[in-house]
Amino acid sequence: MKVEFINPFLESILNVLNTMAMFKATPGKPAIKKNQIAKGDVTGLIGMAGEQARGTLAITFPEGVILEITKRMLGEELTGVDDTVTDMVGEITNMVTGGAKRILSEQGYRFDMAIPSVVAGKDHSIQHKSKSPVIIVPFSTECGDFFIEICFEE
Amino acid sequence: MKVEFINPFLESILNVLNTMAMFKATPGKPAIKKNQIAKGDVTGLIGMAGEQARGTLAITFPEGVILEITKRMLGEELTGVDDTVTDMVGEITNMVTGGAKRILSEQGYRFDMAIPSVVAGKDHSIQHKSKSPVIIVPFSTECGDFFIEICFEE
Repeated sequence: MKVEFINPFLESILNVLNTMAMFKATPGKPAIKKNQIAKGDVTGLIGMAGEQARGTLAITFPEGVILEITKRMLGEELTGVDDTVTDMVGEITNMVTGGAKRILSEQGYRFDMAIPSVVAGKDHSIQHKSKSPVIIVPFSTECGDFFIEICFEE
Repeated sequence: MKVEFINPFLESILNVLNTMAMFKATPGKPAIKKNQIAKGDVTGLIGMAGEQARGTLAITFPEGVILEITKRMLGEELTGVDDTVTDMVGEITNMVTGGAKRILSEQGYRFDMAIPSVVAGKDHSIQHKSKSPVIIVPFSTECGDFFIEICFEE
């Protein structure tokens, strides 16, 4: 998988969180996901497919981080993961992928986006079943870490 | 969403389970998913995208059902959800969608498939964030029920 595929997603998520929630996140070093199981409480997942490439993006939040983002976006203090929170995660997943799609399209990579799905459940894990490597990028925030996983096949 | 989109997935999953695992499942009545939260232990998820339509498919198994399917496919008795099981769920998700894609392509609906992802976690739930209805179909088996969820936007 080419590094050109990763940076547009990093750029896009920082942009979405900053403009929508004034929420600062610092990306860590991208790594190839090997055996580690990355767990979280809420995950936005979206597929991407086209003639040139197919892929998937997952954004996995611990509860504390997504509740803070939701609070800043909506001004509502929530105490747990409910439909408002999962709607927000679906929306963030859509916006991040839409932003990355625009950047990648300018670089000549075209794909269509599937419908975002949101997984809720304490300490769930996600695996992407592909022969291509899965890249995992942690983000640190004042409320804890979240991470994204990206996998593309050309 | 048209009913033509649903039947190819039902036909395909029955075919995959029957030919690969000699496992009999009986589909129940398709319903529009409203507020009900359908929970499971392992879910295969895949996005579909094309110019005419975009969608997502989720196949959610309780642990007992997927362990029995894995046992019949591989002849191995497993005691819990491990990489062998999640690989199997990814493979089933891919095969079911590939089968449905072939049938739908003959009907003039074309789309590309994204990379399958597999969620593992006790009692997780999945929501599809779309304005189109989500159709949920339960399947009963001798080991318990599993279900699929399909959502398409034209």
